[in-house]
Amino acid sequence: MAMARTGIWFVGARGGIASTATLGLIGLQQQRTDTLGLVSTLPQFAGLPLADWDSLVVGGHDVRDASIVETVERLHHESRVFDGKLVDAARDELTVVDARIRPGTLFRCGATIEKLADASMLRLAHESPRDAVSRLQSDLQRFQRESRLDRVIVVNVASTEPATNYVDLPPRWNEVDRLLDEGPASPLSASSLYAIAALDLGMPYVNFTPSPGATPPAIGELAKRRKACHAGQDGKTGETLLKSVLAPMFAARNLEVLSWVGHNIFGNMDGQVLDNAANKSAKIQGKDQLLGHILGYDPQTLVTIEYIRNLGDWKTAWDHIHFRGFLGTPMTVQFTWQGCDSLLAAPLVLDLVRFVELSHRRGETGVLSHLGSFFKRPLGLDDHAFDRQTALLHEWAARQRR
Amino acid sequence: MAMARTGIWFVGARGGIASTATLGLIGLQQQRTDTLGLVSTLPQFAGLPLADWDSLVVGGHDVRDASIVETVERLHHESRVFDGKLVDAARDELTVVDARIRPGTLFRCGATIEKLADASMLRLAHESPRDAVSRLQSDLQRFQRESRLDRVIVVNVASTEPATNYVDLPPRWNEVDRLLDEGPASPLSASSLYAIAALDLGMPYVNFTPSPGATPPAIGELAKRRKACHAGQDGKTGETLLKSVLAPMFAARNLEVLSWVGHNIFGNMDGQVLDNAANKSAKIQGKDQLLGHILGYDPQTLVTIEYIRNLGDWKTAWDHIHFRGFLGTPMTVQFTWQGCDSLLAAPLVLDLVRFVELSHRRGETGVLSHLGSFFKRPLGLDDHAFDRQTALLHEWAARQRR
Amino acid sequence: MAMARTGIWFVGARGGIASTATLGLIGLQQQRTDTLGLVSTLPQFAGLPLADWDSLVVGGHDVRDASIVETVERLHHESRVFDGKLVDAARDELTVVDARIRPGTLFRCGATIEKLADASMLRLAHESPRDAVSRLQSDLQRFQRESRLDRVIVVNVASTEPATNYVDLPPRWNEVDRLLDEGPASPLSASSLYAIAALDLGMPYVNFTPSPGATPPAIGELAKRRKACHAGQDGKTGETLLKSVLAPMFAARNLEVLSWVGHNIFGNMDGQVLDNAANKSAKIQGKDQLLGHILGYDPQTLVTIEYIRNLGDWKTAWDHIHFRGFLGTPMTVQFTWQGCDSLLAAPLVLDLVRFVELSHRRGETGVLSHLGSFFKRPLGLDDHAFDRQTALLHEWAARQRR
Amino acid sequence: MAMARTGIWFVGARGGIASTATLGLIGLQQQRTDTLGLVSTLPQFAGLPLADWDSLVVGGHDVRDASIVETVERLHHESRVFDGKLVDAARDELTVVDARIRPGTLFRCGATIEKLADASMLRLAHESPRDAVSRLQSDLQRFQRESRLDRVIVVNVASTEPATNYVDLPPRWNEVDRLLDEGPASPLSASSLYAIAALDLGMPYVNFTPSPGATPPAIGELAKRRKACHAGQDGKTGETLLKSVLAPMFAARNLEVLSWVGHNIFGNMDGQVLDNAANKSAKIQGKDQLLGHILGYDPQTLVTIEYIRNLGDWKTAWDHIHFRGFLGTPMTVQFTWQGCDSLLAAPLVLDLVRFVELSHRRGETGVLSHLGSFFKRPLGLDDHAFDRQTALLHEWAARQRR
Repeated sequence: MAMARTGIWFVGARGGIASTATLGLIGLQQQRTDTLGLVSTLPQFAGLPLADWDSLVVGGHDVRDASIVETVERLHHESRVFDGKLVDAARDELTVVDARIRPGTLFRCGATIEKLADASMLRLAHESPRDAVSRLQSDLQRFQRESRLDRVIVVNVASTEPATNYVDLPPRWNEVDRLLDEGPASPLSASSLYAIAALDLGMPYVNFTPSPGATPPAIGELAKRRKACHAGQDGKTGETLLKSVLAPMFAARNLEVLSWVGHNIFGNMDGQVLDNAANKSAKIQGKDQLLGHILGYDPQTLVTIEYIRNLGDWKTAWDHIHFRGFLGTPMTVQFTWQGCDSLLAAPLVLDLVRFVELSHRRGETGVLSHLGSFFKRPLGLDDHAFDRQTALLHEWAARQRR
Repeated sequence: MAMARTGIWFVGARGGIASTATLGLIGLQQQRTDTLGLVSTLPQFAGLPLADWDSLVVGGHDVRDASIVETVERLHHESRVFDGKLVDAARDELTVVDARIRPGTLFRCGATIEKLADASMLRLAHESPRDAVSRLQSDLQRFQRESRLDRVIVVNVASTEPATNYVDLPPRWNEVDRLLDEGPASPLSASSLYAIAALDLGMPYVNFTPSPGATPPAIGELAKRRKACHAGQDGKTGETLLKSVLAPMFAARNLEVLSWVGHNIFGNMDGQVLDNAANKSAKIQGKDQLLGHILGYDPQTLVTIEYIRNLGDWKTAWDHIHFRGFLGTPMTVQFTWQGCDSLLAAPLVLDLVRFVELSHRRGETGVLSHLGSFFKRPLGLDDHAFDRQTALLHEWAARQRR
Repeated sequence: MAMARTGIWFVGARGGIASTATLGLIGLQQQRTDTLGLVSTLPQFAGLPLADWDSLVVGGHDVRDASIVETVERLHHESRVFDGKLVDAARDELTVVDARIRPGTLFRCGATIEKLADASMLRLAHESPRDAVSRLQSDLQRFQRESRLDRVIVVNVASTEPATNYVDLPPRWNEVDRLLDEGPASPLSASSLYAIAALDLGMPYVNFTPSPGATPPAIGELAKRRKACHAGQDGKTGETLLKSVLAPMFAARNLEVLSWVGHNIFGNMDGQVLDNAANKSAKIQGKDQLLGHILGYDPQTLVTIEYIRNLGDWKTAWDHIHFRGFLGTPMTVQFTWQGCDSLLAAPLVLDLVRFVELSHRRGETGVLSHLGSFFKRPLGLDDHAFDRQTALLHEWAARQRR
Repeated sequence: MAMARTGIWFVGARGGIASTATLGLIGLQQQRTDTLGLVSTLPQFAGLPLADWDSLVVGGHDVRDASIVETVERLHHESRVFDGKLVDAARDELTVVDARIRPGTLFRCGATIEKLADASMLRLAHESPRDAVSRLQSDLQRFQRESRLDRVIVVNVASTEPATNYVDLPPRWNEVDRLLDEGPASPLSASSLYAIAALDLGMPYVNFTPSPGATPPAIGELAKRRKACHAGQDGKTGETLLKSVLAPMFAARNLEVLSWVGHNIFGNMDGQVLDNAANKSAKIQGKDQLLGHILGYDPQTLVTIEYIRNLGDWKTAWDHIHFRGFLGTPMTVQFTWQGCDSLLAAPLVLDLVRFVELSHRRGETGVLSHLGSFFKRPLGLDDHAFDRQTALLHEWAARQRR
């Protein structure tokens, strides 16, 4: 029996995360790398009929012209990541993927992202939202057809849209559907157009960014109607991951967190976009709100995220946690996290594709809340404690095996 | 109905942990402090018939002559902990407790602890182990009688014995029983004599230290025979707590820990004792072995624990964790923990007394493995992940409520 | 021969720094504390005829009603500083000092400081700058007369004024003199009015804050005319001190600083004031600009300073320095500074009084540039390297001895 | 006029430091790298007739067989340093240098170093010290002759010998001279034999290691007799550099250092050698003693240095400094240093060669104490403060210019 083929369609396909995920997938297909960093290869998921690496094919949308190879080489050079031999061995295949990348949409992406976009994107500037969705859908269908794919999963790993995009959409799909004809006045933004394009075709959608995507309830309703599944929002890779691991300890030991301060510095393109106040505020919200959920009260918090040019893809986070224990005694934990953002995110994206693909195949629709451990703001899940989120995923896996 | 009265008998009653626990208990009884740092007052345990603060009475053994008040004032002055008003308000009551403290035993405690002991302890130097046990038991019975207690729980918070004490005892109680007559050649040491004294009287025993206590299987057998329950070993308060919280994250995300280095510095009496190599090695074992259990492989580890005079009761731990993620990328987490040892340990000791008291009242015997989250080397439990250990305690609580 | 008596007149006399300096001075007079933290007692200054502790008398201006004793007790309780016995022994004397404190001026201090001020200050709200200066001068003269002082030194340790105050004043004194009659439209602000009041009387003036004070050239001209000396600006106590110590190392080793990020968190009243954006920007300028001076180029820098309520007077700074060495290799130094602001500043204020008093007695006038090591923005000195600034002070001391 | 040619003869020529210095020199000669990290190219030394990069030729001794290219490629791969293009461009030239490397001596180097040595070294095992010196001298003379060099400077960058080598040698050269005939019972060790070989030929000698080298007074006497100059001991590149920069600040501000704890972890070959207790203790001495010199009293100190395999050439040092300021207030500074050892040391080695070469050319003999800023234990200099050491070097440079 021929192996079913699955397409991964990256929104932001030439960015750091998608490029790294694509390089890593090629490395796995060529057996040039091991499975470190991949959750879906852990013993807890052994025996699940997850997609083989060889069955995955990458395409995507982007608004920039720079190639995946350029992104990979810049990461290799500036951030001292990747084995040079892997980069060489993957170059041809990366170029093949690059040829499948189609122009995305800049609809209400904000000035910062527009500035990074390729000039050719301007000819699409006057498209209505509905025209944009149609065009994106043609791209998806052509990818499925030309690459002979059994299914396509759309994964948003594009830069964060400004928080000003987070307007309230009407709660029902038929009302939002009408907004697609509204032009520049429409409250929809690019990330949601990609989500609508995918879900309307019944294709699963994963939102690894803080942008709205499929989060508005009306778009969730569309997913249900088209029997599509989706997951999100905002990949949990570094500082917030640590928060969701450490905060439950303070709760379990009845130690009162007085303040939790987190300062993040990094230098990749995501950083450049976040250097804009509106885009940043979208990001920061997700990094912060989980503490109240886990602790049951709101300590004073502070989160900054700043672009420091020369750090490249390396993010350093310093967190200072001031807490109070027995007899009111104040104590402190500080941690410093030095991680490479794209390398932390990329394997999770591949994991999500594999988990979502199985859910899709098995007919799950709507929000996949068992994937909450992957996200800063897990859709369909109130619990932000990483341990309990992980337990949900393991329970789901156990159910699949029965 | 008159409230049942429970005695807490501290081994090491004049040390930092017991003195802080006693001060805190008085503060709770006088309603001068809140319940921060106490696990047993969390909502998860609401509705359990745990002992009231007013029902608890403190006594204990010690080998030093310095009073509890002196210990409390030294901590207040040198380590800048405790509210001065609480110390003043508790002084009289602390003196009452002090009067209940009886001379302990130095049997095979090692030269470092002997040097700290009061000269008067020397007259007990030639006691046989059996005579020591008898004497300790008389103290316990007299405490129960004179303080009109319904039950007594013995809690070891004395200084760490040298690792050389960790000899293999015979596996059966009747063989160990015979060793009590052997004199200085006996492989038993003080911590186990206290455990034997308590368990043989059917009194629960809690081992908050790395010393052997009731850990040898033969002494566990004695507990079972006398229908006594016990828990241990080695309170998990700071750096090791963080290890047991963080290590599961690396496992859940398939990030390979390459090395985990932990350096601990502090300046309390415990530190002075641990400055002796033999005593220290006993302590370090417990801080380190959990990583292999949680991760499923043994990364390179290094743990030091050093006495830095002027730090007083404040322990600073610096941990450096080097790990490898996707495509072999090396990354780092470092944390710095600044906690006050006695203040972290004391509430857990009070929690253990309340949980053990309920188990005892309800007829549980042998090792109380649901208390594993409190210990570096949890007796009766292989799982070192703090989240899962905590879940066990919550499940026990839920069962008690039914 | 009777000892000459010197008055210290604190602007902000009830704030943390002045209160701590006053408490410390009483401790020194009563021989209840040693001279740790005081620069002027080091061997390098032995033999200089610096003022004795007993010859110093404290008075001051403030805009708040809370007493020095209250400030001292809040620091003692909230920030766990000071020996309780010293506080008790100094209480009476602190009350005597408190009785000498006179209402200051809020002239163009900004809304944040106004909100902290006592209601009674409102009756002074409509004073012209010239009237304010006259009133302040009467206070100074009355202090000198009533306390039988040979001289008075005015030291500004009040909260930071908003950066909006840093308007360009005309360069000559006679032009600024005319502005005193202008009322609310005058570009002068409180800190400069205090400076003018002092210098116009020939009294030395020290500006330990980032506020303008005597920095405008026209006020420096006034000092020269009146043969008064002055020093400033903005005490160098913590993170910036470390910057001025570490940055010369990078220069001397030809290591290129790529970025220097500094995050400061603290919880005292100064922090509350700085939580206001305008006041903060005044502070941050001083913390940052020295790097370019020392390194000879401008690395990317970032400085934040944030108010975290529960930290009290303790400031934690985390600095992350990314630098590049041989063959372009990027490396990192991070430091964490945990210092108590008032306790770091107070001894320097006493040192400055002693050094300035000697300069005044010896007839030095204008800017005392040899005091640059005490300041973030040293008046009259371009060199920000702490080692060379310290050498200047030692050379001055050597000259005094000849 | 033809440029004078200078030979650099590395003892330990295939180790990380020498290999990096050689690679860097080639990069400088080929103008493929800039001068970052090199002290001698700073403006303070402009106009000095220091040797051009093109005039320098490398050779050396080693006891291992692995080639420089292998060392460079291992550093590139394991520690992610060096630009791949530079490595490629330098490969041929590195091979040429490799061909000039001659077998060194293992005389009393200790078991740890012997284990790393090439089997072929065993045929030299029974050489007397005098025979070894003669053989080393032939190598030096042959290098000078065959490479047509005007002078040769010997630089010890070999692994640290065990501290047991630090026996007292007799104080006069003629006594030590006799010891060369003694065989295995001789108290001399390899590092001193290399020094004797060089100095006896009148060649300058630089000791960048903690091993004895030319430090014993008798060998210093030999240098004087042969009119040779020398410098040492133990390159100051990382944690100790920071100590010598920070400690003067505590002194200048009269802040009492209570304790200074430094933990170092790293994974290069030097680390493997230091994992042996005897070799390590030699190293630690140098890292620690400077504090007492700078502060004028001895705070409690602790230094560890541990081999953590996977860190490669990257050394992380965590230092915790506990100090006390005004009114006895305890405060803390911590720093974390993440530097690449070979990349920090290599440029200093090239600087030392250039400075020593000029001194030699100008007829300076004996210890060059103005080079003290480069060393943990500066020969001929009691001052350990980095700023004052740097000033000495600048003054020397100014004198050369006159």
